[in-house]
Amino acid sequence: MKAKAVFYHAGCPVCVAAEDSVARAIDPVQYDVEIVHLGNDKSRIAEAESAGVKSVPALLLDGSPFHINFGASLSELK
Amino acid sequence: MKAKAVFYHAGCPVCVAAEDSVARAIDPVQYDVEIVHLGNDKSRIAEAESAGVKSVPALLLDGSPFHINFGASLSELK
Repeated sequence: MKAKAVFYHAGCPVCVAAEDSVARAIDPVQYDVEIVHLGNDKSRIAEAESAGVKSVPALLLDGSPFHINFGASLSELK
Repeated sequence: MKAKAVFYHAGCPVCVAAEDSVARAIDPVQYDVEIVHLGNDKSRIAEAESAGVKSVPALLLDGSPFHINFGASLSELK
């Protein structure tokens, strides 16, 4: 069974660059990658926060948050 | 032909976590991933700096630097 990866972003230029490169580079054999736009889907901000996400873009792999460069803090998206 | 990915780290706990998750999650069909320990291989710090790497761990994908969380700044490794 594939593991779950979630890429959180907010449409910012830093986010788009990370999505085009890092999210796209994730091995589809190992991971199902879900892309979540927290600006458009604010109902999922709490879920991201619970997982330890502090800023976007961020990649959640097997439940661990990895912040990729810096686009915006989660608090700016609320 | 595969694209080149370079994962720069320095053996720090944040680096090891990123290597175990993010570097390992890179699609081997798309990328040849090289792992570089800048603490042990200081001769490559200049190369990382030229590519725009400011801190480790960092992943260079197609020449673009993506800083993953924060372990140490490059200047601390010199």
